[in-house]
Amino acid sequence: MTKAAETGPLPADLRAVVDELAAGASLLTGFPGGRAILPSRDAVIQIVEELRSVFFPGYFGTSDVRAEALHFYLGATLERALQGLEEQVRRAFAFFARHDYHQCTHCAEESRRVAAQFLAGVIEIQRLVRSDVEAAYEGDPALKTRDEAIFAYPGIFAVTNQRIAHRLHVLGVPLIPRIITEYASTVTGIDIHPGARIGERFFIDHGTGVVVGETAVIGARVRLYQGVTLGAKSFPLDEQGKPIKGIDRHPVVEDDVVIYSGATILGRIVIGQGSSIGGNVWLTHPVPPNSRITQPEHR
Amino acid sequence: MTKAAETGPLPADLRAVVDELAAGASLLTGFPGGRAILPSRDAVIQIVEELRSVFFPGYFGTSDVRAEALHFYLGATLERALQGLEEQVRRAFAFFARHDYHQCTHCAEESRRVAAQFLAGVIEIQRLVRSDVEAAYEGDPALKTRDEAIFAYPGIFAVTNQRIAHRLHVLGVPLIPRIITEYASTVTGIDIHPGARIGERFFIDHGTGVVVGETAVIGARVRLYQGVTLGAKSFPLDEQGKPIKGIDRHPVVEDDVVIYSGATILGRIVIGQGSSIGGNVWLTHPVPPNSRITQPEHR
Amino acid sequence: MTKAAETGPLPADLRAVVDELAAGASLLTGFPGGRAILPSRDAVIQIVEELRSVFFPGYFGTSDVRAEALHFYLGATLERALQGLEEQVRRAFAFFARHDYHQCTHCAEESRRVAAQFLAGVIEIQRLVRSDVEAAYEGDPALKTRDEAIFAYPGIFAVTNQRIAHRLHVLGVPLIPRIITEYASTVTGIDIHPGARIGERFFIDHGTGVVVGETAVIGARVRLYQGVTLGAKSFPLDEQGKPIKGIDRHPVVEDDVVIYSGATILGRIVIGQGSSIGGNVWLTHPVPPNSRITQPEHR
Amino acid sequence: MTKAAETGPLPADLRAVVDELAAGASLLTGFPGGRAILPSRDAVIQIVEELRSVFFPGYFGTSDVRAEALHFYLGATLERALQGLEEQVRRAFAFFARHDYHQCTHCAEESRRVAAQFLAGVIEIQRLVRSDVEAAYEGDPALKTRDEAIFAYPGIFAVTNQRIAHRLHVLGVPLIPRIITEYASTVTGIDIHPGARIGERFFIDHGTGVVVGETAVIGARVRLYQGVTLGAKSFPLDEQGKPIKGIDRHPVVEDDVVIYSGATILGRIVIGQGSSIGGNVWLTHPVPPNSRITQPEHR
Amino acid sequence: MTKAAETGPLPADLRAVVDELAAGASLLTGFPGGRAILPSRDAVIQIVEELRSVFFPGYFGTSDVRAEALHFYLGATLERALQGLEEQVRRAFAFFARHDYHQCTHCAEESRRVAAQFLAGVIEIQRLVRSDVEAAYEGDPALKTRDEAIFAYPGIFAVTNQRIAHRLHVLGVPLIPRIITEYASTVTGIDIHPGARIGERFFIDHGTGVVVGETAVIGARVRLYQGVTLGAKSFPLDEQGKPIKGIDRHPVVEDDVVIYSGATILGRIVIGQGSSIGGNVWLTHPVPPNSRITQPEHR
Amino acid sequence: MTKAAETGPLPADLRAVVDELAAGASLLTGFPGGRAILPSRDAVIQIVEELRSVFFPGYFGTSDVRAEALHFYLGATLERALQGLEEQVRRAFAFFARHDYHQCTHCAEESRRVAAQFLAGVIEIQRLVRSDVEAAYEGDPALKTRDEAIFAYPGIFAVTNQRIAHRLHVLGVPLIPRIITEYASTVTGIDIHPGARIGERFFIDHGTGVVVGETAVIGARVRLYQGVTLGAKSFPLDEQGKPIKGIDRHPVVEDDVVIYSGATILGRIVIGQGSSIGGNVWLTHPVPPNSRITQPEHR
Repeated sequence: MTKAAETGPLPADLRAVVDELAAGASLLTGFPGGRAILPSRDAVIQIVEELRSVFFPGYFGTSDVRAEALHFYLGATLERALQGLEEQVRRAFAFFARHDYHQCTHCAEESRRVAAQFLAGVIEIQRLVRSDVEAAYEGDPALKTRDEAIFAYPGIFAVTNQRIAHRLHVLGVPLIPRIITEYASTVTGIDIHPGARIGERFFIDHGTGVVVGETAVIGARVRLYQGVTLGAKSFPLDEQGKPIKGIDRHPVVEDDVVIYSGATILGRIVIGQGSSIGGNVWLTHPVPPNSRITQPEHR
Repeated sequence: MTKAAETGPLPADLRAVVDELAAGASLLTGFPGGRAILPSRDAVIQIVEELRSVFFPGYFGTSDVRAEALHFYLGATLERALQGLEEQVRRAFAFFARHDYHQCTHCAEESRRVAAQFLAGVIEIQRLVRSDVEAAYEGDPALKTRDEAIFAYPGIFAVTNQRIAHRLHVLGVPLIPRIITEYASTVTGIDIHPGARIGERFFIDHGTGVVVGETAVIGARVRLYQGVTLGAKSFPLDEQGKPIKGIDRHPVVEDDVVIYSGATILGRIVIGQGSSIGGNVWLTHPVPPNSRITQPEHR
Repeated sequence: MTKAAETGPLPADLRAVVDELAAGASLLTGFPGGRAILPSRDAVIQIVEELRSVFFPGYFGTSDVRAEALHFYLGATLERALQGLEEQVRRAFAFFARHDYHQCTHCAEESRRVAAQFLAGVIEIQRLVRSDVEAAYEGDPALKTRDEAIFAYPGIFAVTNQRIAHRLHVLGVPLIPRIITEYASTVTGIDIHPGARIGERFFIDHGTGVVVGETAVIGARVRLYQGVTLGAKSFPLDEQGKPIKGIDRHPVVEDDVVIYSGATILGRIVIGQGSSIGGNVWLTHPVPPNSRITQPEHR
Repeated sequence: MTKAAETGPLPADLRAVVDELAAGASLLTGFPGGRAILPSRDAVIQIVEELRSVFFPGYFGTSDVRAEALHFYLGATLERALQGLEEQVRRAFAFFARHDYHQCTHCAEESRRVAAQFLAGVIEIQRLVRSDVEAAYEGDPALKTRDEAIFAYPGIFAVTNQRIAHRLHVLGVPLIPRIITEYASTVTGIDIHPGARIGERFFIDHGTGVVVGETAVIGARVRLYQGVTLGAKSFPLDEQGKPIKGIDRHPVVEDDVVIYSGATILGRIVIGQGSSIGGNVWLTHPVPPNSRITQPEHR
Repeated sequence: MTKAAETGPLPADLRAVVDELAAGASLLTGFPGGRAILPSRDAVIQIVEELRSVFFPGYFGTSDVRAEALHFYLGATLERALQGLEEQVRRAFAFFARHDYHQCTHCAEESRRVAAQFLAGVIEIQRLVRSDVEAAYEGDPALKTRDEAIFAYPGIFAVTNQRIAHRLHVLGVPLIPRIITEYASTVTGIDIHPGARIGERFFIDHGTGVVVGETAVIGARVRLYQGVTLGAKSFPLDEQGKPIKGIDRHPVVEDDVVIYSGATILGRIVIGQGSSIGGNVWLTHPVPPNSRITQPEHR
Repeated sequence: MTKAAETGPLPADLRAVVDELAAGASLLTGFPGGRAILPSRDAVIQIVEELRSVFFPGYFGTSDVRAEALHFYLGATLERALQGLEEQVRRAFAFFARHDYHQCTHCAEESRRVAAQFLAGVIEIQRLVRSDVEAAYEGDPALKTRDEAIFAYPGIFAVTNQRIAHRLHVLGVPLIPRIITEYASTVTGIDIHPGARIGERFFIDHGTGVVVGETAVIGARVRLYQGVTLGAKSFPLDEQGKPIKGIDRHPVVEDDVVIYSGATILGRIVIGQGSSIGGNVWLTHPVPPNSRITQPEHR
């Protein structure tokens, strides 16, 4: 046994290690003005859960709701979510730009604007997530009631998060949208980038392993199964050999398309309206409307 | 910047938005008698965790167990789980049927029946989950002790949840079983429907992406790897074009079958005893006992 | 309705069931000396989260860090993690060997040794996880800042856990390393065995469904996508037909290899430096450096 | 050292002790129908704190209140308090009368009545507790703002609790009112029985050790200091030598009386309007209006 | 404004202050072997609350108890309390004597002895605290049921704590007994030293301000009111002018004595059986049995 | 039964009550700019507990401290306390003056100044509270070790709070100091105004009921017992009959004075050095040094 083992971690070691760790950490984060105030992942998750209980009261948050009190419950919960959102968005603006949180009046103003505009769009999000529940109910023979979809469907959970995140993405908020979709990903294994544009009545069944990229466009009444990837084929590099950011590079999936489990669709190609893409299919070229693509069976 | 952004969300806005949200929420849930009492996902999860610590005391729940006190620990934990179960089942019966929770004496009686019958079957569940641990120990060369499987194997976690959920499914409980398997799915990425019938010594290795459908039947000593789907091929529609619910539409996997990662097996087909289905295989036809199905290699 | 349903669970039932459960539980765990003190999964998770906030202060743990106080924050958090680690490792040594926790002075000494040696390697882990963040930043066109990768990338989360677990694995700690990687698996769907040896600048994009086996070796600057398996092809059985444990049976992936989504690579084969393995490819033979392996497209 | 000390508590001991404890506990509580559902002290405290934040929003509960959202905050908090109150009152009615909680429809009806009538009186309680704050502000030269009284005055805390408890006492609720005033007593050392009738603008300064008995009557604008007792002198015994319950036996304190620290006033005597009772005075006879009672000084 | 105010606390300041604080702290505590493991006040409180729910199940701890499950509830709760007690007592022995917690096998043995002997005396404590409830019920005309005393009487709370603490005091445990009675004091304002010997059916009404000293002896059926002190008159000093510790210096109160509010009784004097000591009385001489001591009234 | 009882609280009622409550609440608090951000009592308590664990590490906060890590523990805890203090002080400045929290740059600057100056005085507070522990150890024959005083003495707890609060009071902070001493009062029944000036080695034994007023001055080595009041005799009224605020109106207690339990000392009088004031004494005139004041005994 070594000497260290006999006596426990030596004091000198701990101090030395800590000083080295601190040096490394400073390089990484570049604290502005000597003080970094970051968005809090825990706070963001709480906001999303408050919004989920606004969209589905009784199913999430409180379990016991009287019709007369619904008004108050929704108002108080929404207000709490908006307050939290304004704070976290303000932190995100400041930290993203490496501004001093307390000095950046622009960050404060922008976060107020975002909270107000988010509020203005809340009804539309409610409409969309309710349409998603309808799509689940109609699309899944194992589903006996809409309640079950709301309580227990990973697809509903993940798409609700993405619709919230997408709205914030459109409003120009950095960092927070990714935290929101990543949270859905940890819960469901469904990873949809906040940038993806998704129509109404979207249904993902089972869902583990689904990946939808940043510039994907998905029409109305689309259905995906587990393990589907809507990804980028490859991406052009700039002169230093780094990937060029911000180019449309993911599929466009038109209305009424169904994509079965494990299918991989790569690149800025169009999957025509009403098409059906079979399980495990590997696809990098566009397909016309109403196509049926399948992979050969193994025997 | 808009006026709203300068002053924060306006009071009129908040009230208006809340009233619209409330209208939408009422339509969705159809509160019976003006008051909705729903099952609580958090409470259901707590019950499942209490049961897990009943099946695996020391590994979950308390970490420090004296043999003499095990009797008390198990009894107190099981009682707490049964009390919680009775309450949540009662809520599920009432809410599923849109009955008034406080008025529905039938719901109260049924939930007592369920708790009693669940208690009567607890020993059998313990026997099954212990057989699953044995199967993991024998089937995985990376596994050094049974302890490791109990502590850390997603397959053990998910199958334990499914065995609990299946028992409640058989007892006729709505909503709760799906919440229990969905909880396993969020933790492990393994999604087994409560309706699936599964024999003893069932082992899922790694497991992320496994999907097992509602009417699947799995024999004894079956082994699955990550990404395996036992799904439905397609489902007949009724006259309105909606899927017909409740038809046997998932595979029957007989004893001693092994299915490797990423294989997709669809439809009410029989995989004969002792067969081996290779990775990434796509299969929609029955196979006789002792078959070896593989996919061609890529070069 | 049965008599049990009328009266609730009967007292005799509860006692009888509990006694049977207790008998079963005793067989399973083999409590040494009548008292079992097990590692606590919750405590292990807390230690890992403390270490994560040591490697990424501000992003995890506290959200508000002044440069002058970073020294204290890191030192206090690291100390707490080391104390917790020493305790859990001591429990793991004792329980794994079925020794009495309080009597096993060897377990106490070994856990002190592990804590001291882990401290000695903390700077190296920091260096590696920072190199992983760089790799994500350079490899993903959707990524706007390194912050986003730290906050929200499942790959960063899972690989950080594995690097911690691997260090403990090398130090000879039982049980704990698997709990740490399994925890990452529940959060991210990425399942990397603690035994895998992984070079710097490792990047896993999306990641759900990735499985990396115990004896896999991964070089520097390797990139994996979701659903990739680096697994064992089959494993030799001993004379009783049980798998022989501890043989090198997973792939060796050399520097600068990219493996696209859904690819399955099985057996102790070498993927030569600079190779690219296409999506959904199924591979069980070695490939020379700079190979391009793809699967045919479906039409 | 005894044998027990060497081996730890023996199993037989634990079982034997538990069985004896269980026998004793059963005698004490007389569980009706084999199952006792008691009010929960923790739940009652939560209800009182919710009501306190309804009366003093911003000071208790949330710390950040926008005027536009106050409506929602108050409504949601009040609803939660009323729901909790109905449940705890129902338990109290059932347990007090040793009825079966689930069978007692009378208990359910009564608790609904109580919740409705409590709601009807909430405005009056708000008016009274606000008048108490005014009295503190006017009566204490050390007090700079009303805020300080609300945040930090034990007298305000204790009297608010008593006004809530008194209302429930008047509505005929058993057990709960005592739990509420006892909670105030643990926090402040001020012990006012729920039965005491207290006029507006009541101020207790410092307050530790104040005791006000069940049948005390206190007028408007009364001020008490720490250590004041308004108690019973002695109480008549019945034929078995037990105290007869329910007789008026505590003082009547008329409007505008001041009673200084440590004064003890015993029996059903009237302290006339506008009187001043000096510190440490011991008083068991009535005093006419505008009296000045003092104790002789020590030298 | 100073320079410090402009820039926030300076880094140099924080380090300098911390180093000075650390120097001071080291002197105060005298850490043995470089590592101090102290009893935890929070853990001790939790143990006491577990014991309280063992003595009064349903009133504290769980609120919903079935007769059949009481056995398990009591056993599991008692076991948890004993485990916690053993750990905290072991810490107390080690810290009190400035021994190294991990090296002190004597401390480990003694704590096992204490836990076993405490278990052996638990039935007697239950008997005593139940007799205290009877005394409250018989002695207080405002009390309608025994339930109210258990739920809400500070006297019951404080005396239960003292009976637990006294048992540990008798078993020779340092530090813990004082923490237990001090906890009662913070909740109730009743401060009874663990050393005081108290007979059965002891009742303290209201209780705020009661002080009972270390060497006091109280007979059976004694009743105290708020503000009563059983204290020391003065204490002999040793040659350095320090108080000599451990001398009998508090009153002996014989059976059936009543002491009214605010009475102060000082010194090792005997209050004869059946006596009554009036409110606010100041007493430093012994009184014979059946005395009636009162203070003159103020007019 | 009334109609309300049949149907539960009516929706109209709830809305009407809420609107009335909201009207009342607005009058009370006078929200500036439509949004009130108040100090949080819970946050203030947490800060005080962090400071207590800085002054007494190991006794409060963490229970397991290694000498080498003490530096980090103290620094991290102190930093957290200072951050929290700056935020709460900023809220207090803004709310006290009814300024808008976000607009008031003066409030932000002042709170930074306060945090810096508080840091500068922390060593002095440590010195004083350590001197108080010494005084307890020397003054109480029942006290076996200093540890016991730190863990369990209400006097130590309350005086530590007051010394923190007094420092903030001197720095001009509104509201927070009262919250801090009131918190001590709820825990200990000892109520010392933040304004009181107190010398070193101050000891309060037992302490319940002690009241020390705003302008009291206490010398070094003073000892108080439970129930002692250092209060105001009466206070001059202004022309409207309101008490004039801010006049010296409480006693001056010189060095080495002992005041026994229940003594009441009122008015701006001087208790001369070395005097002893007996229990229950009532005193409103000055006493020369070395006086012995006692009350006559009752017989």
